[in-house]
Amino acid sequence: MPEYFLGIDGGGTSCRAAVSDRSGTILGRALAGSANISTDLDGALQTILAVSREALEQAGLDPDLVLYPAYLGLAGSMTGQAGERLKQHLPFSGCEVRSDGLIALEGALGPKDGMIAILGTGSLFMARQDSEVRALGGRGFLLGDHGGGARLGRALLEECLLACDGLRSFTPLLERTMAGFEGDVSSVIAFAKSSAPSAFAAYAADVFKAAGQGDEAALQILGEAARLINLSLDKIRFEGCEALCLLGGLSKSYKLWIAAHHRELLREPEGDGLTGAISLAIRTFG
Amino acid sequence: MPEYFLGIDGGGTSCRAAVSDRSGTILGRALAGSANISTDLDGALQTILAVSREALEQAGLDPDLVLYPAYLGLAGSMTGQAGERLKQHLPFSGCEVRSDGLIALEGALGPKDGMIAILGTGSLFMARQDSEVRALGGRGFLLGDHGGGARLGRALLEECLLACDGLRSFTPLLERTMAGFEGDVSSVIAFAKSSAPSAFAAYAADVFKAAGQGDEAALQILGEAARLINLSLDKIRFEGCEALCLLGGLSKSYKLWIAAHHRELLREPEGDGLTGAISLAIRTFG
Repeated sequence: MPEYFLGIDGGGTSCRAAVSDRSGTILGRALAGSANISTDLDGALQTILAVSREALEQAGLDPDLVLYPAYLGLAGSMTGQAGERLKQHLPFSGCEVRSDGLIALEGALGPKDGMIAILGTGSLFMARQDSEVRALGGRGFLLGDHGGGARLGRALLEECLLACDGLRSFTPLLERTMAGFEGDVSSVIAFAKSSAPSAFAAYAADVFKAAGQGDEAALQILGEAARLINLSLDKIRFEGCEALCLLGGLSKSYKLWIAAHHRELLREPEGDGLTGAISLAIRTFG
Repeated sequence: MPEYFLGIDGGGTSCRAAVSDRSGTILGRALAGSANISTDLDGALQTILAVSREALEQAGLDPDLVLYPAYLGLAGSMTGQAGERLKQHLPFSGCEVRSDGLIALEGALGPKDGMIAILGTGSLFMARQDSEVRALGGRGFLLGDHGGGARLGRALLEECLLACDGLRSFTPLLERTMAGFEGDVSSVIAFAKSSAPSAFAAYAADVFKAAGQGDEAALQILGEAARLINLSLDKIRFEGCEALCLLGGLSKSYKLWIAAHHRELLREPEGDGLTGAISLAIRTFG
């Protein structure tokens, strides 16, 4: 049985690594930039190797990666063969590459069964019962991710333009949003053309706040997002499911929008994706 | 009064020029690539100069542009100052730069008043009464253009992914569409990421055909698009309006979806944007 274990949580904006002993006590950590294997496999590989070595050095351990087993949870590894291709280039003594959703689930629930909803820029749902895992969502900004902040922001700007054209009524939220563009429709269009999903997601907080004040446009946008979130939870929920953790930047905001039969399962997450990766590394290779 | 007149119709995919005599008889024509002043002002300028000279040469006239007045209808000239900037570099003896919508309206209705709906990849609405002009739509694929084919295609693919996730029921249209991707969700996402609006719009014909067969998803998608089209026509319609022309690649398909109080105004367009530009050149400079 190995003495030390690497866990890696690689997302679209940052990649974190940790090394632990057999008890799961974390001895060293490191943080680097994004590691998205579906958009940049080579860059992701280099980032993963560097951040792993740095975590080992932080722990005062030999940074030769061939000495350690690693469990990787990576964004973009749920579709396509990128995860398998990456695995061929990894030098670890043992290695498992799964989705960042799976390590988030392990981190939130520990070894227990249940489900998670990751509600950040995008939206992703996972449930586990025994060894069976169900996943839903995370399809990206353009066609999916209906519960994510980026879609909320895009829907807000779309309603703004409809209001400017007189095709729907203005609400205080739409007025405030247009004021942020000095009332200029072409600025809204230019923003939309040049912005990443995260920039759209920056409007999500405004939408939630306005909904709390009864803003009709905010309630409409969130009502549709929440409908699809609750439908997704219905779809992945196993019979007898006892726990639901909301994760991601919008987890607190969405709490009130979760349907009652899911809300009664809500609990705080035990840990994050990185502790989940460590825990899975120990379960897999220990 | 000048003896000859130039008309120019510059869109996102092609730029056409024609030269006519005082009676409006077209003596020469030419066609070139795109001339989008909002995305590439310099390139658009060179295209406009070249295609104008070629039309004059076709007509057997002196290709020196300073000898002729020109009326230009250009995509992307409705927002921003690009049209004014372009005008400063144009050598014509007289020159007017307006939107491609305005020359389309003139081409369709002649000097008469009325309204047009341009339903192609995007959607744009214009109405004219005396010298007053109202315009609506044409905001682009991401936030607007709700009646355009690109939005219909995007909505179709979005419903496909919801069906694949079990969040809505499959219909024959959704099944056929997914069969085109060999049932592979990641292929749909890859297509959406790499495709221009025109590629999404290629699905519009399928949506109309399926709606004719009672397909529930197609009826839902077109119902929402038609709702916004009819609302837009309500918004721009002048009191006493007597004519409505549908233009663009989806004009025939949408005929059945136009609300009865607008449908009774429908008539065939007299001409296209290029004949409209010629007619406006003669009215303006003649």
